[in-house]
Amino acid sequence: MTHPLEPMLRPKSVAVIGASNTASRIGGRPIHSMKTLGYKGKIYPVNPNYETVQDLPAFARIEDVPQGIDCAVIAVPAKVAVQTLRDCADHGIKSAVMFTSGFAELSDDGAKAQREISAIARDSGMRILGPNCLGVFNVDAGWYGTFTNAPGMLKLPPGPIGIVSQSGAYGGHVFMVSQMRGVGSNYWVTTGNESDVDVAEVIEYYAQAPDVKVILAYAEGIKSKDRICRALDMAREAEKPVIFMKVGSSAVGAIAAASHTASLAGADAVYSALFKQYGVYRAETTEEFVDIAYGCQFGKYPKGRKIDLQTISGGVGVQMADAAVKYKLEVTPLPPQTQKKLKALIPFAGVNNPVDFTAQALNDPSLMEANISMTIDEADFDSHIVYLASIPASPFTRDACLKIFQNIRTKYPDEIIMMNIISPEEIIADYEALNMPCYEDPALAVRAMAALAHFGEVFARGRPDQPPALPADALAAPTTTIAEHEAKKLLGSIGIPVTVEELVQSAKEAVTVWQNISGPVVMKIASPDILHKTEIGGVLLNLNSADDISNGFETLIDRARKAKPDARIDGVIVAQMITGGVETVMGVVCDPVFGPAVMFGLGGVFVEVLKDVTFRLAPFGLDEARRMIDEIQGRAMLDGVRGAPPSDINALADALSRLSVFAAENADNIETIDVNPFIVLSEGAVAVDALVVPKGI
Amino acid sequence: MTHPLEPMLRPKSVAVIGASNTASRIGGRPIHSMKTLGYKGKIYPVNPNYETVQDLPAFARIEDVPQGIDCAVIAVPAKVAVQTLRDCADHGIKSAVMFTSGFAELSDDGAKAQREISAIARDSGMRILGPNCLGVFNVDAGWYGTFTNAPGMLKLPPGPIGIVSQSGAYGGHVFMVSQMRGVGSNYWVTTGNESDVDVAEVIEYYAQAPDVKVILAYAEGIKSKDRICRALDMAREAEKPVIFMKVGSSAVGAIAAASHTASLAGADAVYSALFKQYGVYRAETTEEFVDIAYGCQFGKYPKGRKIDLQTISGGVGVQMADAAVKYKLEVTPLPPQTQKKLKALIPFAGVNNPVDFTAQALNDPSLMEANISMTIDEADFDSHIVYLASIPASPFTRDACLKIFQNIRTKYPDEIIMMNIISPEEIIADYEALNMPCYEDPALAVRAMAALAHFGEVFARGRPDQPPALPADALAAPTTTIAEHEAKKLLGSIGIPVTVEELVQSAKEAVTVWQNISGPVVMKIASPDILHKTEIGGVLLNLNSADDISNGFETLIDRARKAKPDARIDGVIVAQMITGGVETVMGVVCDPVFGPAVMFGLGGVFVEVLKDVTFRLAPFGLDEARRMIDEIQGRAMLDGVRGAPPSDINALADALSRLSVFAAENADNIETIDVNPFIVLSEGAVAVDALVVPKGI
Repeated sequence: MTHPLEPMLRPKSVAVIGASNTASRIGGRPIHSMKTLGYKGKIYPVNPNYETVQDLPAFARIEDVPQGIDCAVIAVPAKVAVQTLRDCADHGIKSAVMFTSGFAELSDDGAKAQREISAIARDSGMRILGPNCLGVFNVDAGWYGTFTNAPGMLKLPPGPIGIVSQSGAYGGHVFMVSQMRGVGSNYWVTTGNESDVDVAEVIEYYAQAPDVKVILAYAEGIKSKDRICRALDMAREAEKPVIFMKVGSSAVGAIAAASHTASLAGADAVYSALFKQYGVYRAETTEEFVDIAYGCQFGKYPKGRKIDLQTISGGVGVQMADAAVKYKLEVTPLPPQTQKKLKALIPFAGVNNPVDFTAQALNDPSLMEANISMTIDEADFDSHIVYLASIPASPFTRDACLKIFQNIRTKYPDEIIMMNIISPEEIIADYEALNMPCYEDPALAVRAMAALAHFGEVFARGRPDQPPALPADALAAPTTTIAEHEAKKLLGSIGIPVTVEELVQSAKEAVTVWQNISGPVVMKIASPDILHKTEIGGVLLNLNSADDISNGFETLIDRARKAKPDARIDGVIVAQMITGGVETVMGVVCDPVFGPAVMFGLGGVFVEVLKDVTFRLAPFGLDEARRMIDEIQGRAMLDGVRGAPPSDINALADALSRLSVFAAENADNIETIDVNPFIVLSEGAVAVDALVVPKGI
Repeated sequence: MTHPLEPMLRPKSVAVIGASNTASRIGGRPIHSMKTLGYKGKIYPVNPNYETVQDLPAFARIEDVPQGIDCAVIAVPAKVAVQTLRDCADHGIKSAVMFTSGFAELSDDGAKAQREISAIARDSGMRILGPNCLGVFNVDAGWYGTFTNAPGMLKLPPGPIGIVSQSGAYGGHVFMVSQMRGVGSNYWVTTGNESDVDVAEVIEYYAQAPDVKVILAYAEGIKSKDRICRALDMAREAEKPVIFMKVGSSAVGAIAAASHTASLAGADAVYSALFKQYGVYRAETTEEFVDIAYGCQFGKYPKGRKIDLQTISGGVGVQMADAAVKYKLEVTPLPPQTQKKLKALIPFAGVNNPVDFTAQALNDPSLMEANISMTIDEADFDSHIVYLASIPASPFTRDACLKIFQNIRTKYPDEIIMMNIISPEEIIADYEALNMPCYEDPALAVRAMAALAHFGEVFARGRPDQPPALPADALAAPTTTIAEHEAKKLLGSIGIPVTVEELVQSAKEAVTVWQNISGPVVMKIASPDILHKTEIGGVLLNLNSADDISNGFETLIDRARKAKPDARIDGVIVAQMITGGVETVMGVVCDPVFGPAVMFGLGGVFVEVLKDVTFRLAPFGLDEARRMIDEIQGRAMLDGVRGAPPSDINALADALSRLSVFAAENADNIETIDVNPFIVLSEGAVAVDALVVPKGI
């Protein structure tokens, strides 16, 4: 089935409404670009004032153009733009690219007009890009429905990269930088105000397009969880890396983002959750954005993190090793046997890893071939980076060096080898032709390889685990805020372990509960009117005799009556006293775009001072929960510190995924959930306190 | 006074020993480069086999060359190299650059030969670069005592950058990258095995050279604390930024570093301490190394962190704002009055900060001038970054745009303005000529501005505070390990507050001490044979009655006798019980190169799980101690969390600086000190336990 965006991204015929004879004008640029850059389809300029536009026969009105053409470019003023769109829809045109600005980004009236545009798309089925966008192009097809300067920077043949950007200016910027970096883009789409087509749908198009292998996306905000999740899922299934720049990571940035476009910027932590969940690589700088895309366009992803670092300079070897540790690649040593052989080959070499084959390679380049071949044959690295400085460019070593790597590629067609060299473009092209990406900066080469390894992992693991099913008798979301005893009942019903406890009305009952628990207990006053129990002495710890329990009951009731004579008193909670374990915090927040997201962190200073928490969109399964646990800074706490035993990670992961399922199933009714503390023991785990706040309170 | 390295870095006459007629050979390259790149001094090729070398009259032996020339390049095999050096020294040659390898990097015999080289330098006063180095060059002087390929990449006129690198290959790499980035280097020195001249001394040379404004240094290890500290101090006093790449930050990297050169890699944390103390910027990647140097070469450093972000793309404004927060610049809003005026000027502009002057500026570039001028006039920003994408390069806007920035520079000659543009080199040069550095990547432009602001701060604060003087009756370093009571006596004697406590021999004495303390006390058994007191129940907490104290004494003695009948018992410590406050840790470690370094961190998980600690070389004053405190991750703990009062930072800083002075004064005798916990209260602070280990135990 053809994708709905096909007529917009690969049109066989286009109309340009507001067509201009002047190549530099907004209405002139698309025609000029298509004519000079080889568009093969039919172009229909629409302008009532001319017989011809840029030597093509012009049409007075869109109605004069044959019906059902693929795409119309709308370069007319805002006041007539909506009517023009309607005319296009009526005339059966399949898609429209709308440059015109002055809509939701400008005023309430503009927003109203934009809603009309959305309605036209919805009612007619004509797909609309923009308004307020810089348009679209497709290098291979020679299709330039855009007035950006970017095509002027085109110097590479079409490559496997698809770019999509909400911002037109930044989209142009990225295209220019990518051309300079040797990243061959083919598709380029800017979505502007997204009245109809959004970044997510373009990603989806790229995910299914056979000529796109790598997706570069830029957004300030996303409006539909379902569309972005579907698109990212499709990209992952197609094993196409998505590299995303989402701005607004800081509070200052988020304010600026909100003021810039008509889009709603969700909380940054939730975007991070989305990206982690779908294996998206989030870039922070344009340089990184494009540098990772460059590496991906070669289409090879390491199966693991074991990296072989080969270098002609020991110092650079150290830099690469530092970077490898930073980016979590494994600089595993060569097998002892191989080290011995290498030492025999190059006596002064560093043979552990990094392998420093020294300047000897200048005198006898064949040493490099022997050395690299031996490493590939005898060790099991997932990837290789070779640092050669300017050796491939030097007239003395140029030919010999290239021959060596041609031989290596012939012998090892599938090995993932990245070159780290300083050379003119034409020499770099020789190595790229061997499917060896070239980087100039040793540390950034390592960063790129780590990104490739990340995608290798993401593609290998495929779709994540199914979220667990909740018990049939799981309780429903509450309609009022519930805390502690009630909240834990709810958690218990969805399979999250909670402290054994009972609400009792008498000292006698309290003693019975203690006897059943058979161990020390905590007693707490239970009253909806007493929120800060400790302040009135409403909590007694570590009671373990019938007398203490009995007295405890009376003491608590007494203290409550004295502190707040009119408080409603539900009774006293007698709860199992938990000792040991690691304090963690689980929570649910509700994002306006992405719905419920689950938070996880360690308790105490980790949450309060270090904000060491991580999020995932609900629901998720055990594998995703484990990844959450593994990525917090204080992870080592769960391995056991100061002689403590390791915590039960399975129990923790199970609770997180169950909480996520409950949050997702009750997305419309839950505002927040706090499970704090959730204590993880060496066997099992237990929620000690909790709070559930429904929506609309 | 002329710097001792002057003859090596600006020689008026040079000999090349082992001179070759072949330009590509190691002994041929220096002569070839000097001849083609305009060396003005006299060149004496030395080679017994030729009448002339590269058309210059050749000399059979160094003795045949006039006495006292400035520099000899040694390009002879290792077996005759030492004798050749000796001949040079005997002949009164002032300096030598020694390419020859095969010394300490190779074998024990090589190390022995290298010690002879050091002795020649020491005894004769002839300064020696290398061995095993790629040499030196000085673009301005046309002096090329090097066989690197780097001069072939020379495309810029001499600029204000001095490069020094231990590694020759990496030195060449940095030079090439810097030329491509538009960073004008003049001096380039590689120090190799550092038998005499080291990286520190070259930094010192650059610090005093009038034609160097920015110093780029690369090292794998540093051998002398005094030399590097003196050099960095001179550079700071001269207000010359030092940008340093020190590899080996990871454990893997450090192993590779140690195996690569003959230098001793100190612990990375200690290097970080050194760099922080002297305001050195530590770069992680070559790209960063060179990119920061590029910004510094314009010689302007913001006086503060308030940054104005101007942009033609809202999305890029957000990116810049995100980066500004990351790099700790302050994106303060424009004054409300100015915002109003800007809104009148450009109705759809973002006027807070970032200022988004929108694509309107394309239609009417004069808006940019008005807008930027107004911002400079009415707000008090320390720096400005202007994002213009490819506008300065577009034929439609190129001239108008340049005119605007020429006007702005004329009106505001001292304002610090950085451009963020994508343009060909010749257009970039126009803006650089206006003293406006040009960056392509918005986030990296912000990073560079943050680096400039860092140097602005470092230069403004100048030399750090004097370390405090210790009391005249400070105790000396112990000769055996001392713990707790003894250790705290020592700390108390240097002015660090410790718990009030006494060692007592009887229950009666204990009660008296408690009465003097007038508050709850802790009692602990004191025995050199019982290290883990808690394990034998040797600590009693929170005692506050005569009976409890009296019984406590007997209990502790009893428990000690039972647990370890042959233990020597010094008595019982009765100590003030400290409650509240924030637990911190202070310590001293002794680095083999840098001597004592003081560590600071927060107690508990901060140290144990998060390794959230920072170091400084001893001694230091209060300002440096405050910077240590401010840079730990958990800093907020000291501001008071969960309603706790703020901690007494002055008391903490005072203790840290006193500890540093004691460590420095006893550098030869102290191995480690732990003050753990050092509890910081809302008023004052107190050491609760401590351990002092002398050297040689």
